[in-house]
Amino acid sequence: MGVGDVSKRILLGRKLRSSQLGETLLPKRIALPVFASDALSSVAYAPDEVFIMLSLAGASAYMWSWKIAIAVAIVMAAVIASYRQTVHAYPSGGGDYEVATVNLGPKAGTTVASALLVDYILTVAVSISSGAQYAASAIPALSGHEATFGSLLVLLLMAMNLRGIRESGSFFAAPTYLFMVAILGMCGIGLFQLFTGNLPRVESADLTITPEPGLEGPLTTFALLFLLARAFSSGCAALTGVEAISNGVPAFKRPKSKNAATTLLLLGMIAISMMVSVIVLARQMGLKYVDPHDLDRLTRDGQALPADYDQHTVIAQIAEAVFRDFPPGFYLVVTVTGIILVLAANTAFNGFPVLGSILANDGFAPRALGSRGDRLAYSNGIVFLAVMAIVLILAFDAETTRLIQLYIVGVFVSFNLSQLGMIRHWTRLLQTERDPAERRRMVRSRLINAIGLSFTAVVLVIVLVTKFLAGAWITILAMIFFYALMRGIRGHYDKVSAELAADEEDRVMPTRVHAIVLVSKLHKPTLRALAFAKATRPNVLEGIYVSVDPVATDKLLAEWDERKMDVPLKVLHSPYRELVRPIVEYATEIRRSNPRGVVAVYIPEYVVGRWWEQLLHNQTALVLKGRLLFTPGVMVTSVPYQLRSSQIARERQLSDDFRVRPGDLRRGQVDERHPDELRR
Amino acid sequence: MGVGDVSKRILLGRKLRSSQLGETLLPKRIALPVFASDALSSVAYAPDEVFIMLSLAGASAYMWSWKIAIAVAIVMAAVIASYRQTVHAYPSGGGDYEVATVNLGPKAGTTVASALLVDYILTVAVSISSGAQYAASAIPALSGHEATFGSLLVLLLMAMNLRGIRESGSFFAAPTYLFMVAILGMCGIGLFQLFTGNLPRVESADLTITPEPGLEGPLTTFALLFLLARAFSSGCAALTGVEAISNGVPAFKRPKSKNAATTLLLLGMIAISMMVSVIVLARQMGLKYVDPHDLDRLTRDGQALPADYDQHTVIAQIAEAVFRDFPPGFYLVVTVTGIILVLAANTAFNGFPVLGSILANDGFAPRALGSRGDRLAYSNGIVFLAVMAIVLILAFDAETTRLIQLYIVGVFVSFNLSQLGMIRHWTRLLQTERDPAERRRMVRSRLINAIGLSFTAVVLVIVLVTKFLAGAWITILAMIFFYALMRGIRGHYDKVSAELAADEEDRVMPTRVHAIVLVSKLHKPTLRALAFAKATRPNVLEGIYVSVDPVATDKLLAEWDERKMDVPLKVLHSPYRELVRPIVEYATEIRRSNPRGVVAVYIPEYVVGRWWEQLLHNQTALVLKGRLLFTPGVMVTSVPYQLRSSQIARERQLSDDFRVRPGDLRRGQVDERHPDELRR
Repeated sequence: MGVGDVSKRILLGRKLRSSQLGETLLPKRIALPVFASDALSSVAYAPDEVFIMLSLAGASAYMWSWKIAIAVAIVMAAVIASYRQTVHAYPSGGGDYEVATVNLGPKAGTTVASALLVDYILTVAVSISSGAQYAASAIPALSGHEATFGSLLVLLLMAMNLRGIRESGSFFAAPTYLFMVAILGMCGIGLFQLFTGNLPRVESADLTITPEPGLEGPLTTFALLFLLARAFSSGCAALTGVEAISNGVPAFKRPKSKNAATTLLLLGMIAISMMVSVIVLARQMGLKYVDPHDLDRLTRDGQALPADYDQHTVIAQIAEAVFRDFPPGFYLVVTVTGIILVLAANTAFNGFPVLGSILANDGFAPRALGSRGDRLAYSNGIVFLAVMAIVLILAFDAETTRLIQLYIVGVFVSFNLSQLGMIRHWTRLLQTERDPAERRRMVRSRLINAIGLSFTAVVLVIVLVTKFLAGAWITILAMIFFYALMRGIRGHYDKVSAELAADEEDRVMPTRVHAIVLVSKLHKPTLRALAFAKATRPNVLEGIYVSVDPVATDKLLAEWDERKMDVPLKVLHSPYRELVRPIVEYATEIRRSNPRGVVAVYIPEYVVGRWWEQLLHNQTALVLKGRLLFTPGVMVTSVPYQLRSSQIARERQLSDDFRVRPGDLRRGQVDERHPDELRR
Repeated sequence: MGVGDVSKRILLGRKLRSSQLGETLLPKRIALPVFASDALSSVAYAPDEVFIMLSLAGASAYMWSWKIAIAVAIVMAAVIASYRQTVHAYPSGGGDYEVATVNLGPKAGTTVASALLVDYILTVAVSISSGAQYAASAIPALSGHEATFGSLLVLLLMAMNLRGIRESGSFFAAPTYLFMVAILGMCGIGLFQLFTGNLPRVESADLTITPEPGLEGPLTTFALLFLLARAFSSGCAALTGVEAISNGVPAFKRPKSKNAATTLLLLGMIAISMMVSVIVLARQMGLKYVDPHDLDRLTRDGQALPADYDQHTVIAQIAEAVFRDFPPGFYLVVTVTGIILVLAANTAFNGFPVLGSILANDGFAPRALGSRGDRLAYSNGIVFLAVMAIVLILAFDAETTRLIQLYIVGVFVSFNLSQLGMIRHWTRLLQTERDPAERRRMVRSRLINAIGLSFTAVVLVIVLVTKFLAGAWITILAMIFFYALMRGIRGHYDKVSAELAADEEDRVMPTRVHAIVLVSKLHKPTLRALAFAKATRPNVLEGIYVSVDPVATDKLLAEWDERKMDVPLKVLHSPYRELVRPIVEYATEIRRSNPRGVVAVYIPEYVVGRWWEQLLHNQTALVLKGRLLFTPGVMVTSVPYQLRSSQIARERQLSDDFRVRPGDLRRGQVDERHPDELRR
């Protein structure tokens, strides 16, 4: 079989696989759960934050809760409408980063990217912290150990992602749909009870909230506005995660953009219904909810609460009341909420490598992140994400309320830049578009994005004003750090690229090849290296032996003669037992004596299968290779000799190739072939 | 200049250096301090241990102290006489390990090696713990923080050895000679005062020691013997380190063996004088000394001592009394003692790599330790030694008394095997020797070694009986672990060696070479790789490009045409953004279609100078190379392209080559040339 056939077979194989690709794309009913967990899970903590902020002025301020819910719902609707434009205009999965880069330039793109990086870390920290609180609602023994439990959860997620869990549709579908059924079902029952006048009271209904000092009595207009702004900006935590679909368009079944837009709409409607229902129900059921740090502001009949009082999350309290006569209902709601929060955290583990790969291809991250070749780079990213999240969870003692202060600013930075980019996008298209129908569509899209921008801009300002000192400054510092890092990496790549730009001089072919084969013993690897080197027919070929011991040297020379080797063996003496320096010096000398030639150094290498075997072999070869590469005019050839144990590593690598990596599913990059097809 | 000239120049250069080697060899006056610190420093803790053990039966048992000192001195004299035979018979520096391996077989050799490995760790732990106690004598603020201070000292030593301190004669000479002058001077003054009847009393002279329960009153013969045995075996800590010279014969000026033997004799005489003088003086000055754990057994006039009472070491107490009217004398003694203890610990950092290198050459340790090529292997050894020592210091709270229990057993295991080996050595030589004078000399030498063996065997039994439960079991477990590890490594190398034994089949030359050059862009590194590959005139030569993005692919193809490249470019499509797998599959296919040919894969590599640049480049090349090596019939050539920053690393490597590494001085392996001679 000729090489032409070979490559044809490979290309055909590839083609086959490309067509199979379609089969792994996601229908809407699977895409919804895959991309929804992050956005929907925020209903587990966003309402709590609204009530906490309002509680600063006492329970009477809860009268504003449903208005804030409506305001958040309106912003969310505007954002969802905006992203529906994005998925149509940018179906490649680049999301906010692509929109900002293309329309506002690389600096805006890098800003969005740094916001997203910070957001991924905070998604893990916030979701897991909230999940730990739900776990403590169901398992009282966990109370007070939320930070430890959360850290363990993150480590578990990290381990699963390092190991490579198969992010599959079914993996997401069951818990996500169960979560929707549980929450919407609970709200439905609650609303039915409300209309029939049978609505039960939550456990905290008979408590009293002492307002913060200075916020008792009637508030000034300014104080009221500031209070509502704080509550509103905290409620906007409900918007986190709605952008996920815009990064996942390539994974949708065709027509991709249309399906993605429909799924986004569905997601928005479900999220809004849940959030508004939960807030309205909680208010009607008499909920009293304060910052877990200020539990002493809660009193019952003027008496302080017992020291071991545990304030359960809003959804847990509603579920407890609605399902008071049916405890399994309570446990179902709390359990699926916990699970959906863990899934939301896992989203970040899937999104992080995708973003890293996009950044790498644009030169803003180490290039190794750009291909699937380097498992180590992926693993480093996953470990980094987990470690940063654990640091936050421990530093903030798994308190969702405090972590939220850091979270929202990053989300809204990317919302804003993305909307601004979309407006520019439509304006640019409108300059050339002449078809009136098409123009009308574009003007309408631009209007939607403009509305989205105006809302998100207002929210960003409110967030910055109300949250800056409470923690947003940490996020902004982290964003500046990532921004500088990415620009620095890009700057380095640009500098290298300029240094490497080709000119004519580089095409000059070396006039002669002087090949030297390193000899340590006369065994199979050496013989193979000599045979391979000879096959390349160099102008000069010689074996090189570094002598540190006259006895061993004499033995080798005798064996060399005895075997009638037809290659001369040169012995370099090394009184200080150095192996590397004599060879480097010899190669340098050869090159200097013939500057237009090239020195080809052949190193026999043992290929072994176990990590500890690797420690016992090839270490000197590794050092030598590293040193020789610094010598111009030298090329270094590794001639492998596969020991039997190398088969272990080969098997492991093959199965590794076919493992689905974090982020693959949401990029539509899942190879369906069975590993055995490639195993030879 | 032809290659013949080149190699001649190199060989001449080497010869020159070999002759220079003599100039760095050590005269006796420098060799003594280099090798003496370990042995002499034990006078800083061995007398203390004798008094502690005797104190169990109350101060009256101190009447035995000088007899124990004499007994230890006799053993030491026997051991020194024995080692004088060893340095004559085995001048290569292999020491106990070589003697045991040659005469008793590799199992005995490995046993000695594992004992020495454990001893190096304990030398650091014991010397530094004792040094920390001396520091606390001089600086009261350190009292109670000895373990922390000791750990910091070990870290400092580790850092210095990692950085590569130049172990030079002058570095050792000043403090070691100062130590001898200080201790012998102090003892001289004390003995003078003793004979003139003006001997002062030490600070603990008016204290009373309560005997241990069960050891009050007259002791049974058995109890007394056991007590004396314990005290004697603790006193034998004074013998640690006398074997150092037998490992350092190659570093001595000629006649090496004779000079080494003379130095050893000198060392023995000094060590014995110091130890006996200190013990006699301490007893005469009324010292009361107990285990620091049992300070409540000390009383003054029937009253308990204050809780903050700090028991100073024996030498510190003598110095305080002798120099009561001249405090600088006290501070000098305590300071140089502390310094000599740190130097003794540093001895282990120098001896460890030497032993590792000998073991590596015999296949009992990773081969990389055997040459000077691999700084990483050296560094790992140094870090390992430091970490283990710190673990011991922290676990035993820097208490010399408890660490001594672990120390002596290892030392005496190697003493015994070494003496036994020497007896075998002489017996073997006597079988063939016919010259009567020579035979007489050998019989005398064998007698000396037999006396040495009988003494050290008795001590080993006493040590095992008296110290086993007190900690020696830890040492024995550690020795078993190292023994198993070394045998395992050797077993692996033997297995590999058998698998690699050459046969005829391996000489078959591949019939054709199919060269593929990896192309990522058309820049200088690629052009160089193509030129180098072309220079080897393969049967087939093609560029290989993995396409993950049609736009970039079209651009490259256009550029390829435009530049009129005379090498065909093959494009491999990779729908999943994989770079590595398509290339590996392609190489495998080529090889399969022509099993008698060889595939030469040329990878252009960027050579950069800073560690973080390395993270940004070549990662994919690294993974690819690792993968390709598992494919039979493939060889991988790195074609380096040196970026400007690579000069930084080149300079660093050159200066690193000329740095003196731990252990070099005591192997006589110091290259005196200036780095600039080799810098090009």
